[in-house]
Amino acid sequence: MAFQLVCSRCQQIYEPGSLLWRCPCGGLFDLATFPISFPRERINSRPPTLWRYLEALPFDPNYVGWQKVTMGEGYTPLVQLPIQQPGAWFKMDYSMPTLSFKDRGAAVLIAKAAELGVEHVIADSSGNAGTAIAAYAARAGITCDIYVPASASSKKLKQIAAHGASVHAIAGSREDTAAAAIAAVERGGVFYASHVYNPFFYQGTKTYAFEIWEQLGGHMPDSLILPVGNGTLVLGAYYGCQDLLRAGLIERLPRLLAVQAENCAPLAQAFEHNEADAAPVENKGTVAEGIAIAAPARSRQILAALRESHGAIITVSEAEIETARLGLARQGLYVEPTAAVPYAGYLCALNAPEGQNLANTSVAASYLNEMRQAIPQGQVVISLCGAGLKAA
Amino acid sequence: MAFQLVCSRCQQIYEPGSLLWRCPCGGLFDLATFPISFPRERINSRPPTLWRYLEALPFDPNYVGWQKVTMGEGYTPLVQLPIQQPGAWFKMDYSMPTLSFKDRGAAVLIAKAAELGVEHVIADSSGNAGTAIAAYAARAGITCDIYVPASASSKKLKQIAAHGASVHAIAGSREDTAAAAIAAVERGGVFYASHVYNPFFYQGTKTYAFEIWEQLGGHMPDSLILPVGNGTLVLGAYYGCQDLLRAGLIERLPRLLAVQAENCAPLAQAFEHNEADAAPVENKGTVAEGIAIAAPARSRQILAALRESHGAIITVSEAEIETARLGLARQGLYVEPTAAVPYAGYLCALNAPEGQNLANTSVAASYLNEMRQAIPQGQVVISLCGAGLKAA
Repeated sequence: MAFQLVCSRCQQIYEPGSLLWRCPCGGLFDLATFPISFPRERINSRPPTLWRYLEALPFDPNYVGWQKVTMGEGYTPLVQLPIQQPGAWFKMDYSMPTLSFKDRGAAVLIAKAAELGVEHVIADSSGNAGTAIAAYAARAGITCDIYVPASASSKKLKQIAAHGASVHAIAGSREDTAAAAIAAVERGGVFYASHVYNPFFYQGTKTYAFEIWEQLGGHMPDSLILPVGNGTLVLGAYYGCQDLLRAGLIERLPRLLAVQAENCAPLAQAFEHNEADAAPVENKGTVAEGIAIAAPARSRQILAALRESHGAIITVSEAEIETARLGLARQGLYVEPTAAVPYAGYLCALNAPEGQNLANTSVAASYLNEMRQAIPQGQVVISLCGAGLKAA
Repeated sequence: MAFQLVCSRCQQIYEPGSLLWRCPCGGLFDLATFPISFPRERINSRPPTLWRYLEALPFDPNYVGWQKVTMGEGYTPLVQLPIQQPGAWFKMDYSMPTLSFKDRGAAVLIAKAAELGVEHVIADSSGNAGTAIAAYAARAGITCDIYVPASASSKKLKQIAAHGASVHAIAGSREDTAAAAIAAVERGGVFYASHVYNPFFYQGTKTYAFEIWEQLGGHMPDSLILPVGNGTLVLGAYYGCQDLLRAGLIERLPRLLAVQAENCAPLAQAFEHNEADAAPVENKGTVAEGIAIAAPARSRQILAALRESHGAIITVSEAEIETARLGLARQGLYVEPTAAVPYAGYLCALNAPEGQNLANTSVAASYLNEMRQAIPQGQVVISLCGAGLKAA
């Protein structure tokens, strides 16, 4: 099986070992559809990690190299909400080897790089993705360069360096960091292990949906509440649900309810105004630094996925994020601010008074109403995607 | 079923709801033996958390209150060592809700407190145990006071406070902190949720052994390499193995190989000199702060357990701990210094040159030889018990 890359714009096909990071036409790469299956007995016979869904992952069935890469990531617990609502769960996606959901994508992407014989990768991230790529590259014996904004916290840089990666601190914005990484990729002909551009990363994050499906006894909840910045989890969840749909294991997509920080909400704006792409915004500053993405590269795909699922995007204020973070800690759940954003959205939808003029409260407020109606009617799973000690 | 407390010295019996923290004779409490079973089908039908072994835990089978307390702790992955040795695994015990193995003990202890109707608990800890008790108490809706040394890092205090616990910073040594907590317990007639004194804590940490037994297909490895300070994991592992032995599921105890920091090694000294109890030592300072216990209260039980298992204790230097920590990070595994101690012991035993005069290298060096012989001959599981971001 080839697991080929396909340009999302011109449909040109490329081999998975290509060192191009996007199509020369400017289009981003997706992964061509490949045959998948969910053999129940095999799944049950394997340990509770994301690798139990091997027949739905983009690997040759005879490839066992992933066993050297794995740190047991995935199959994170579902924990019932204690108070608010029956049929509501937290997905403990910070119970991971590097303490964030990014391990899903990094484990699969680096295992694929190892299978392809890649010896050197470059990535750029100010935080969790860079840490995850560095950790799994270390495990696979792959040389790794991580580009980070010069403003990144020393705690994060220390961990990335401890994994043996070369850290390149870049002055300027988050976009300047990405540009420096891409320049190095193009200059050196190096494999770009990007959590945004490399489609194999999403093949890892899609296991988020598989696990929920299995943990709920073979069905999906009505809604998934997810944070959204670059869309690595929203698109992963979407692809995972599409796989389950294609395999005949679910009958329809769950509603994907995405939440952005009000101070950096290009996707929420585009969603509300029915745009196909998100125009870049100015990042006004948010504690939810993991989703503070002013110009998401895959906005078109994210917006299309949310619409196809009959989903919505709402925004939450800095105060709402802090209230949610503290509310989680008071339930024993200590997460970083970014990871509290979906719960902030949930509380917002649950608690907004009926008659309130929602149009005045947030940029994507017209959808809050819809979200509020969707949530209490059915089952909902709320992502908790990064540990509290990640925060500075 | 009563799950009574029994004095380890005078054998007097007490009810589990007793607010005594030890017997008036001065003896520490153990839990009286109670009937256990490991019904394979029921275990398999439950999610991969430590609660799958419910019939071996000290709860009434009809008690479901633990479901409100759990955050999905336990059943942490076993990850094969990439290089050194086939049949050697890391147990990823930092993949936990509060990022350390202490969640095992805290979840079971707090679930028991909730079952007993306890509304207020006190605990003392400079770190992971205090965090875990605070988090699970928050979840159970139990008021919580945590006593910490005034020198504890602000990061740790911030997390404990976020869980809603009242933090009491005590000037002086770690022992002064414990004394302040005990004084408050005695003054107020409050339930002492101590990871050292409360026997229900060890009923949680014993699941460490159950999981390894299940993950290795129904047997125990030849050796378990564990850190030791207060002995919460060593004694837990011992009790777990005893349960498996009693149930006829294993034929003998695995060797318990414990590792201390050279700079604070009362147990290693006592073990080498064949003493029944450890005499207090001066803590000369170690990065392994989680096991820097100068006067372990349960030293008699720890030493007896190690001897019964044909185990050993060795010590590792500060440099060996740092080398091990970095070596783990280069394999993708980012742990706090305390958690690197067992791997430091493993490397020490594996790499010590044959002819070396071991008596010159560490206080318990005569056992290094034995440990070195034990390890390569058989299967070994090395504990990784706390996440790297825990460290200051």
